[in-house]
Amino acid sequence: MKEIKKLEKKLMELTQIESTMAILGWDEQVMMPINGTAYRAKCSGYLSGLIHKKILELNEDNLLDKLVADFSKLDQNDKAIVRETFRVYKRTKNIPQKLVERLAEMSSKAFLIWRKAREHSKFEEFEPILTEIVDLKIEEAEMIGYEESPYDALLDDYEQGITTLDLDEIFTSLKNFLIPFIKKIKQSNIQIEKIKGTFPINQQKAFNEMVVKKMGFDFKSGRFDSSVHPFTTGFNPKDVRITTRYDEKDLLQSIMSSIHEAGHALYDQNLPAKKFGTPLGESLSFGFHESQSLFWERRLAGSKNFWEYFYPELKKKFNCLEKVSLNDFYKAINIVEPSFIRTDADEITYSLHIILRYELEKDLIEQKIRVSDLKKKWNEKMEEYLGLKVPTDTQGILQDVHWSSGSFGYFPAYALGNLYSAQILSTMKKELKNFDKLIATANFKPILIWLKDHIYSYGKLYTPKELIKKITGDKLNPQFFFDYAEEKYKDIYNI
Amino acid sequence: MKEIKKLEKKLMELTQIESTMAILGWDEQVMMPINGTAYRAKCSGYLSGLIHKKILELNEDNLLDKLVADFSKLDQNDKAIVRETFRVYKRTKNIPQKLVERLAEMSSKAFLIWRKAREHSKFEEFEPILTEIVDLKIEEAEMIGYEESPYDALLDDYEQGITTLDLDEIFTSLKNFLIPFIKKIKQSNIQIEKIKGTFPINQQKAFNEMVVKKMGFDFKSGRFDSSVHPFTTGFNPKDVRITTRYDEKDLLQSIMSSIHEAGHALYDQNLPAKKFGTPLGESLSFGFHESQSLFWERRLAGSKNFWEYFYPELKKKFNCLEKVSLNDFYKAINIVEPSFIRTDADEITYSLHIILRYELEKDLIEQKIRVSDLKKKWNEKMEEYLGLKVPTDTQGILQDVHWSSGSFGYFPAYALGNLYSAQILSTMKKELKNFDKLIATANFKPILIWLKDHIYSYGKLYTPKELIKKITGDKLNPQFFFDYAEEKYKDIYNI
Repeated sequence: MKEIKKLEKKLMELTQIESTMAILGWDEQVMMPINGTAYRAKCSGYLSGLIHKKILELNEDNLLDKLVADFSKLDQNDKAIVRETFRVYKRTKNIPQKLVERLAEMSSKAFLIWRKAREHSKFEEFEPILTEIVDLKIEEAEMIGYEESPYDALLDDYEQGITTLDLDEIFTSLKNFLIPFIKKIKQSNIQIEKIKGTFPINQQKAFNEMVVKKMGFDFKSGRFDSSVHPFTTGFNPKDVRITTRYDEKDLLQSIMSSIHEAGHALYDQNLPAKKFGTPLGESLSFGFHESQSLFWERRLAGSKNFWEYFYPELKKKFNCLEKVSLNDFYKAINIVEPSFIRTDADEITYSLHIILRYELEKDLIEQKIRVSDLKKKWNEKMEEYLGLKVPTDTQGILQDVHWSSGSFGYFPAYALGNLYSAQILSTMKKELKNFDKLIATANFKPILIWLKDHIYSYGKLYTPKELIKKITGDKLNPQFFFDYAEEKYKDIYNI
Repeated sequence: MKEIKKLEKKLMELTQIESTMAILGWDEQVMMPINGTAYRAKCSGYLSGLIHKKILELNEDNLLDKLVADFSKLDQNDKAIVRETFRVYKRTKNIPQKLVERLAEMSSKAFLIWRKAREHSKFEEFEPILTEIVDLKIEEAEMIGYEESPYDALLDDYEQGITTLDLDEIFTSLKNFLIPFIKKIKQSNIQIEKIKGTFPINQQKAFNEMVVKKMGFDFKSGRFDSSVHPFTTGFNPKDVRITTRYDEKDLLQSIMSSIHEAGHALYDQNLPAKKFGTPLGESLSFGFHESQSLFWERRLAGSKNFWEYFYPELKKKFNCLEKVSLNDFYKAINIVEPSFIRTDADEITYSLHIILRYELEKDLIEQKIRVSDLKKKWNEKMEEYLGLKVPTDTQGILQDVHWSSGSFGYFPAYALGNLYSAQILSTMKKELKNFDKLIATANFKPILIWLKDHIYSYGKLYTPKELIKKITGDKLNPQFFFDYAEEKYKDIYNI
């Protein structure tokens, strides 16, 4: 079909500009000297304007409109290309350029104000600009359009097809499981010893490189560096870069971040290269991406099996682990303990941090609460869900950067990733009969092939709802996570 | 003036795209994983197409034509902006897009063929594609236009305003000096001991960082890495990056490359930031840029004074220098010895390598010789100028990458830089009375201020011919280099 070829050509150009933007972003976070900031913002700003323009030009000569009109005549692949492209195009078209610019301007101001407010631990300093941002996001949601809740319009940018109706149901069920589960763990009164010591950074690096290599991260098609905030960026399946952060006193942070980011990277390195430049060559959604990082970090590297292979290697590198048994280590990496900071949370309490944010975001965008109510609500929910009294704004409502950049609708993807990964694990275990042995011998090749066959190779062919059903035969169902958690923590906490 | 503001806005946008292209280039050479090559070429290709388009758009609504028509009414700054912009615009406009694409295509093919031919040491393998490239460059020169020689059209891209007439005069005089001078050195029969030993790379790095910092390289506005070929790239005065290369067995290479690139970087970091985005914020020419790198590498770091301060520091780092005196070291870094490879050449024989290339390039473009004559001519000239019989094509005509990319007209800038820097040094020494002491104490601040005042701050306000006159009161005159060389080598070689 001639139109599809035309569209693909335009999409490839757009992808090249987006990759260039991503290279600038990686460089900024990993390499750029400090004084480069201001000018870099201009270069990135130019590119994001160009991307905006190129997205609108996708419908030049009504190209997209024609394809949408002929949708039923397209084959499955082309349907997915048109569906996903039209979704992005429509969002971009519906949001007036003025609103985009206003949001960009507000975000860069808000970031600086948020950073200072966090330093001072004073939410009140951040409140006025956050109010403006929320107003702009409400306006944006109206422009995009929605069926039930304006929050759905924002959600769609991160997890297409998932709505507040879905999340309300899933998250209610999750809360009903987690809150009593965490209470039981607390009541068990079992205290697990943390990993303590001094862990030279060079040794950490060597270990992490070995692990991600074993996982299947291809160093010929990627890099592994360090940065303040660990992240993954893929310009193309042949150039995918991960970072971690190092602290001599905190061994687990650098290891777990490395495995987490390598989990993201395996997805990006194994996307179908031939379809690169179209939605069929793109990762599915934020939630699915997170399902891959959490699959490796939490599901695999949180299991004893995984460390059967790696713990002896780790002990060789660090003398201070000499007296820590594999079992002690396994327990130490799985301590469940309510805490204030989302990014420090364990796999059990983590989702409650997300649900809290989801509920607040949704209520803000639905105008049921106002920014001035936010701090009180946050602190109430922290007490209700995790039994913690928030001592300072820095440890509470000011901890995350997301709202300053207007990223409302992002948080739920983290919790969805967690649930997807548990559900995927359950299916994988059934299909790969020798699963436990594969993990215990660090023989990850069959795992990677399975993930490629069931997830990576599809790109955006299916929607997230369709893909989870296709992989597991079931719609997204938190029960898989409940089963996983009960099975695992019964031993660790005798519950 | 309204038009100038419009032009400046367009130029800023163009500059941002060029900086982005430069970031991609730096990443490619310093950071990119090997498999990233093919896709990176596409991203860079897209940007270079965009740059081409944006240069042509500089004359949208006849903006440039109008400014050229009103040239006499402009002030000095605006005149320079229009002159330089129009020069670039005209070149771009006159070269048909088809020719640009054909050259780009040929170059990427030629690079691979050249690399293989060099491996096999067989010029014949490279000859056919080089013939095609030369034909295209002849066509390009015709399209650009010229007064005397078609080679002038190519030269102008590297050293605006300099012609074959100028170069013939300068290079003849240079040859007449150098050939007998080198003979005298040879006849002196003095053998200088080279620096030998094993120099741990970490120690080299620490030393090089200390030196470039002392020179004034600002690490907050730059980075210092390693790469296969040392280079400097500046995205903006606040983000200028240098590289060097390391070899445990070759101490001088990494030090001298570091100083050379830092010399380039000081120019880029100290360009007038307020004029950034216009020609007034750009470095003047390839020759002037090279004058700055050679000023530091050859003129300063080739002097005994410079090492009065740094040699004790160097000895602290490397035990194997224990028995090498400052005087021995000074002589060792100034060995004059005809050799086959341009990039390994000393400051005296170097220019003869350039003159040889210049003469061949000019004759090719003027169609006085053909590519099939090239190897014979090269080898004859090597014998005539440097007294060397070229043993293999790899050590001869196949050594440089430049011709494969069609960079005809580039080489002369290296020799011009050498001459400019000697002439500039002579003036600086007169104006800075305590010059020797400044160097011997590594107190480079006054040097840097002088360079800023006399060179960096002007950007492209003057042409190269105007600026050398303005700085030194004289037109480019190789006599300054002759005096410098005679004064210096009289002691080293007793001549």
